[in-house]
Amino acid sequence: MPQYRARVTVTLRPSILDPQGKAVLHAAEGLGFDGVQSVRVGKVADLNLDAATLSEAVCLAQDLGQKLLANPVMEDFSVDVVEL
Amino acid sequence: MPQYRARVTVTLRPSILDPQGKAVLHAAEGLGFDGVQSVRVGKVADLNLDAATLSEAVCLAQDLGQKLLANPVMEDFSVDVVEL
Repeated sequence: MPQYRARVTVTLRPSILDPQGKAVLHAAEGLGFDGVQSVRVGKVADLNLDAATLSEAVCLAQDLGQKLLANPVMEDFSVDVVEL
Repeated sequence: MPQYRARVTVTLRPSILDPQGKAVLHAAEGLGFDGVQSVRVGKVADLNLDAATLSEAVCLAQDLGQKLLANPVMEDFSVDVVEL
């Protein structure tokens, strides 16, 4: 069966406060980095998938994003899939 | 000054064990997802940057990755920058 590599990127919705991002921003300022206006932190899951077709792999990755990886109240996610 | 959007993606080096990824894999199996072979979890930082040029923005994002966002012993990172 073909193998696919999927990356599911989970980010906080724009309306949700991000204290971790604020902490990174303040640390960057403390280290002397100029020009950083804002930081938002998210997570990424790299999946190796077995699927019959690319579109099946995309469906599987989206299902995993919806049901397991992202909290739909607070987070958005996006999916990128490539064949290996 | 032009504005740029940078995404710094931090992933564990391949030789480093990833218990969080293993937990996600087991949770996926428990939810009945077939075809997931492996999961590795990382983090992503979305930055809004002020910089004079695209290459300056890329340098700034790479500096932030090296000095603040990634632990070079255990993690790799990649940088994508687009002009806003």
